[in-house]
Amino acid sequence: MTSEQKPILYSYWRSSCSWRVRIALALKNIDYEYRTVDLLSQDAKDQLKSVNPVGRVPLLLVNNYTINESLAIIEYLDENYPGVPLLPKDPIKRAQARAIALHVTSGIQPLHNLKVLQILNKKESGLGGEFAKQFLTDGLTALENLLKESSGKYSVGDEITVADLVIPSLLYTAGRFNLDLSPYPTINRINDTLAEIPAFIAAHPDNQPDAGLNA
Amino acid sequence: MTSEQKPILYSYWRSSCSWRVRIALALKNIDYEYRTVDLLSQDAKDQLKSVNPVGRVPLLLVNNYTINESLAIIEYLDENYPGVPLLPKDPIKRAQARAIALHVTSGIQPLHNLKVLQILNKKESGLGGEFAKQFLTDGLTALENLLKESSGKYSVGDEITVADLVIPSLLYTAGRFNLDLSPYPTINRINDTLAEIPAFIAAHPDNQPDAGLNA
Repeated sequence: MTSEQKPILYSYWRSSCSWRVRIALALKNIDYEYRTVDLLSQDAKDQLKSVNPVGRVPLLLVNNYTINESLAIIEYLDENYPGVPLLPKDPIKRAQARAIALHVTSGIQPLHNLKVLQILNKKESGLGGEFAKQFLTDGLTALENLLKESSGKYSVGDEITVADLVIPSLLYTAGRFNLDLSPYPTINRINDTLAEIPAFIAAHPDNQPDAGLNA
Repeated sequence: MTSEQKPILYSYWRSSCSWRVRIALALKNIDYEYRTVDLLSQDAKDQLKSVNPVGRVPLLLVNNYTINESLAIIEYLDENYPGVPLLPKDPIKRAQARAIALHVTSGIQPLHNLKVLQILNKKESGLGGEFAKQFLTDGLTALENLLKESSGKYSVGDEITVADLVIPSLLYTAGRFNLDLSPYPTINRINDTLAEIPAFIAAHPDNQPDAGLNA
């Protein structure tokens, strides 16, 4: 089943969660409309809340329905659009791919999102960064060990899966926090491989219409 | 496809993420072995890390493979075991159910997990609770609005879905933080309905082998 109308993606160039969805859209060759949500503008966020109660990016508008949460959007795209599959067929590999994606999206990323940093830094200057770095370090260490078990050319075996979609934004963020990435050779290797793929290049923050906003 | 060996669940009675998986196992009538991981014991957590690098509960051991992350385990069970489905067939409802589950597991729950509370309370007494309450309140408000749009008898329409599996532990946690739950009539109504269902009763923390540990 393919959707009838061109989907609309509410996105912000540097949002990790939007980035993942952009990779999925690009891998599937789905034509979509990009709508920028300026995450530093309260007005823009309030407007987004009028479209979907969660009021966060990414948000996919498809046939007048809204879908929030990056992994729910990715599963929706995978189940409803043709093209390269984003999940392996093998049940265990499928579970591994989802688990790796969830490890990043629920175990690492929420602990350094913008709101967390704002709240903690308001409490004490630098506290947000200190907190984020601790969870990034622990999370990257666990991820490196997960990938040592599951990876082939990509995160799970030799085909691209949803697990690969969470890697580029994670390393980009770790770089912004000046973390030493040398303890994670498997993650780095996979990230370097992904960085050469056209869909991953197209989805990069620097290649979005709102690139550089608030930079 | 049904797994050949009896699955083993590493769990802790009061872990929200373990609770969700226990509901799925009970709804599907899957016979499994329960292994307690004492989350307040560093030894127990280190032992768990030797089984899976993430070292967190829940962890499902099935045919010598380990699967971590509650939602990855639930999708695995749904795809590989017969019985009541945990996701709707309709593509939009399916996406809504996943998005609601993810809103809780990545947007609310990570911000009040044990490690977050420990780190912030060490920084300043009470900071963990203050931080957790803010994300619980914002998250419950968004969830109430999501459910107003999607719910019927249950969270998404009139059938139980993965979205319902995240509700009981969320309200239990909100209760432990003494939050006023009166602004969330839809969430309360659904939670009350779920509380009568045998599988949800069987999965409740108080009905686990390790109930009361560290209480």
